[in-house]
Amino acid sequence: MSEAARRVPEHVRRIGRIHHIAVIVRDIEASLGFYRDALGLEVGAVQPIPSDRVVIAFLPVGGVKVELVAPTDDTTGVARFLASRGEGFHHVCFEVDDITAALTRLAIDGIELIDSAPRPGAEGPVAFLHPRSCHGVLVELIEAPGGPAWASLYPRGFVAPDAIR
Amino acid sequence: MSEAARRVPEHVRRIGRIHHIAVIVRDIEASLGFYRDALGLEVGAVQPIPSDRVVIAFLPVGGVKVELVAPTDDTTGVARFLASRGEGFHHVCFEVDDITAALTRLAIDGIELIDSAPRPGAEGPVAFLHPRSCHGVLVELIEAPGGPAWASLYPRGFVAPDAIR
Repeated sequence: MSEAARRVPEHVRRIGRIHHIAVIVRDIEASLGFYRDALGLEVGAVQPIPSDRVVIAFLPVGGVKVELVAPTDDTTGVARFLASRGEGFHHVCFEVDDITAALTRLAIDGIELIDSAPRPGAEGPVAFLHPRSCHGVLVELIEAPGGPAWASLYPRGFVAPDAIR
Repeated sequence: MSEAARRVPEHVRRIGRIHHIAVIVRDIEASLGFYRDALGLEVGAVQPIPSDRVVIAFLPVGGVKVELVAPTDDTTGVARFLASRGEGFHHVCFEVDDITAALTRLAIDGIELIDSAPRPGAEGPVAFLHPRSCHGVLVELIEAPGGPAWASLYPRGFVAPDAIR
């Protein structure tokens, strides 16, 4: 750990929980044949995200979600992942209290950021870290509801799906 | 879902939580430079598992654990995974109430099992499902403490590390 990193406040360092793990699948309904019907997970919601050209199914399990992600065309990174590697694990998302502070600290520590600033995700402000800096794992951060990035990224009154489920 | 699967009792179907996600790394201490020092996860324990020729670090986060697994020689499946694919996500483990019943039901549903019966893991009775049947994800099941497989697989008085942490 760098000297600068040691000086950051403890709350900036804290990871609250794993928010979700994302799995890329070819077809949501076919994959629910395993995750829902055979394994027995509940399905919280299935929703298209037209801006990302994917359909996502959320399967909440004990405070974490399994997110199944299927591309709807072949132009996206998700589609290229599927074409080159096949179905499988894509990323893990950790929840932090202050995503901007976390990104700043990670950059100081030499972690390569895919997103140097938070951007509005479907469930809160998010940013990805490069797997090169994360020992081969694509890591996403999401800011917990009520954190400081919410006010700047979302219109007043926006309620995250997490909060209404 | 098959007709037979529909008839199994609801408790057999229930997945309680994600128990851990396992990540294969080349070197535990180097990977803690990211997971502990940069990301800020706490390290619950680092322990060699000589029988599996690996060292494992447990990083508990909100009721789930990130398990970092590093091979100690080049003879194991973990070592071959590392050699062929590099560092990265390895498997996700779901906790079930009755692992033997869960395996029976999964087999009836046509899921390919790597372990057709539970075997004693470091933290409870475990079994792996083949990624071919799990849309590309290696899935492990573990039986929750007090489940029926514990009595047959562990000597009386065995306490899982989960219970004492």
